[in-house]
Amino acid sequence: MAMKRATASVIRTVWGSGVVEPLPISRSLHASPGSKKIVGVFYKGNEYASSNPNFVGCVENALGISQWLESQGHQYIVTDDKEGPNCELEKHIPDLHVLISTPFHPAYVTAERIKKAKNLQLLLTARIGSDHIDLQAAADTGVTVAEVTGCNVVSVAEDELMRILILVRNFLPGYHQVINGDWKVAGISHRAYDLEGKTVGTVGAGRIGKLLLQRLKPFNCNLLYHDRLKMELEMEAQTGAKFEEDLDVMLPKCDVIVINMPLTEKTRGMFDKERIAKLKKGVLILNNARGAIMDTEAVVEACSSGQIGGYSGDVWHPQPAPKDHPWRGMPNQAMTPHVSGTTIDAQLRYAAGTKDMLDRYFKGEEFPAQNYIVKEGKIASQYL
Amino acid sequence: MAMKRATASVIRTVWGSGVVEPLPISRSLHASPGSKKIVGVFYKGNEYASSNPNFVGCVENALGISQWLESQGHQYIVTDDKEGPNCELEKHIPDLHVLISTPFHPAYVTAERIKKAKNLQLLLTARIGSDHIDLQAAADTGVTVAEVTGCNVVSVAEDELMRILILVRNFLPGYHQVINGDWKVAGISHRAYDLEGKTVGTVGAGRIGKLLLQRLKPFNCNLLYHDRLKMELEMEAQTGAKFEEDLDVMLPKCDVIVINMPLTEKTRGMFDKERIAKLKKGVLILNNARGAIMDTEAVVEACSSGQIGGYSGDVWHPQPAPKDHPWRGMPNQAMTPHVSGTTIDAQLRYAAGTKDMLDRYFKGEEFPAQNYIVKEGKIASQYL
Repeated sequence: MAMKRATASVIRTVWGSGVVEPLPISRSLHASPGSKKIVGVFYKGNEYASSNPNFVGCVENALGISQWLESQGHQYIVTDDKEGPNCELEKHIPDLHVLISTPFHPAYVTAERIKKAKNLQLLLTARIGSDHIDLQAAADTGVTVAEVTGCNVVSVAEDELMRILILVRNFLPGYHQVINGDWKVAGISHRAYDLEGKTVGTVGAGRIGKLLLQRLKPFNCNLLYHDRLKMELEMEAQTGAKFEEDLDVMLPKCDVIVINMPLTEKTRGMFDKERIAKLKKGVLILNNARGAIMDTEAVVEACSSGQIGGYSGDVWHPQPAPKDHPWRGMPNQAMTPHVSGTTIDAQLRYAAGTKDMLDRYFKGEEFPAQNYIVKEGKIASQYL
Repeated sequence: MAMKRATASVIRTVWGSGVVEPLPISRSLHASPGSKKIVGVFYKGNEYASSNPNFVGCVENALGISQWLESQGHQYIVTDDKEGPNCELEKHIPDLHVLISTPFHPAYVTAERIKKAKNLQLLLTARIGSDHIDLQAAADTGVTVAEVTGCNVVSVAEDELMRILILVRNFLPGYHQVINGDWKVAGISHRAYDLEGKTVGTVGAGRIGKLLLQRLKPFNCNLLYHDRLKMELEMEAQTGAKFEEDLDVMLPKCDVIVINMPLTEKTRGMFDKERIAKLKKGVLILNNARGAIMDTEAVVEACSSGQIGGYSGDVWHPQPAPKDHPWRGMPNQAMTPHVSGTTIDAQLRYAAGTKDMLDRYFKGEEFPAQNYIVKEGKIASQYL
């Protein structure tokens, strides 16, 4: 793996004691020797930082790797201050070697920042989802981009099922009645349904989509999926989900649509006014993928008219969502800030995955193949 | 089946054409011939009554059986006015033959009301859960009590899984941030978890408990259940749930406790201060069974101290919950009015089940055996 501005150096790794021949593939060292400057951009924990020893995802706890990095002579700077020309992140751009970021509180890595970052070798996304990075600019300058693939797929799939149930069963109006001192069952039950028997379609059936389908299986729904490829026969048999080659044939069949694909130039804004108008009246839409896949205003209009019966998800455009983001106040929304993949369990997994990749980087070893988003100038297929 | 004040009459039913012998068990006609007075107590639909043609559970739509009853010469009165000496229900108590009620908006059928109801033959609960009826008084006077058993078990099991996820994943603080214009991921994620790997125990594994365990299976939890009896081996194998004979041995193992048993004199107040103190610190409790199984104040105290990390459910004591019910304002609650079993799908099922029993009652036929709660002076075992 060629690393931008890294000292060229070839190593031979011996895999197990029985191997005497050098491996046929030469590997470049990820890192030049010596101390590295690593910057991590995370959300602030504030008063919660010390409330839970496993709450490693916040600035204060910095993935729990500060001591480990410093004991090896590396410099590790963490901040949540990531916007504007005078922010803390901007100060370190010229001489950092590694930038760790997350999609929850994304450090937007633009072509301009990449150009300015003369020492930059590695962009680590401590989770899944690297669309906050200009991947083409990274590829063009030989910077490696990697994610902790798989670290939070269970978290997101669980969260999706929760949101499907919240919308189908019309949970929130009941909760509002409780906190407002009301008791009007009809105001809830006139549009509350069972999930059983409904048609649920996932747009994208990658790791998260498959885990969702497995969890939906006992609910006795009619399960559909659209993806570039048909899934393995075993998974189809296990989940009972039916492949729909044509997205626009699948969508109007669905009572519930779940969006499970990355944000790319192809998917940006794909749920626009025209496409939403072709959906079933009162359709429920669940999007934990990326906010910009939706046309923001089209969603607001359709929620107001009843064309969309409920919209839930934890992704917005931009993030953090401004105070006046129109999704905050639209009817029948069940939104949260971007949290589905940052449960305590997921934090422990992505902290461990990030540490593992840093360790491999220091040692000049390859990352797990599925973690690469940009490698040697090539962008991973799911981002094309 | 002996019916109070019903004309004694014995019929022989021929089960299929091949049966020539009279059946060994004689059956009484449920009803004497002629017009019956039937009273239904439901919640008001108000402005929602006409919003959905399948919204049959409200007073205005009256289970969709008005025309059918009236065409047969019966009188059918529906009301939501059920409390106090001058309420609409009270006026009809002296001469009604059948009272249809639901647990969402319960018509409390006391011994006093039963005594006053000289013509009363049948108490139909258009759903599951007849603890709003004095079953002993019904048994003592020969009144039959029946439920639409099974009509909403799927609805409640789905709702339980939704609430488990809402608590485990700490959904509501995120939702509040959205509507309040905030974005503080740490305020959510410091106590948000995946369900995967957690220990979930159900107290009671009847129809609802089993459906819940089936739906929990793909979440890779550690599943436990306590009941009077071990479930069938096949169901244990299918769900992977482990039987716990001793409730108080099971409870402290649980990260999540789900209450799935009827309210009886044995279960009333069983989750009191002492029992709650023995649970895991921060335990999540889910109760869609009956509010009075909990000691109201003990729950408030434990939610305030953090001993209970989250409490959700749709059952209260009494119902409707008064405006100042302390559960409305306690921390980490995810409550709703009593709605889990009154989705549109469930309404259609319990309307059909009620109609079927009325039809059988008019024709002097038996109900499905599992529907009987009080029959010929005997109370069903689950209520003892």
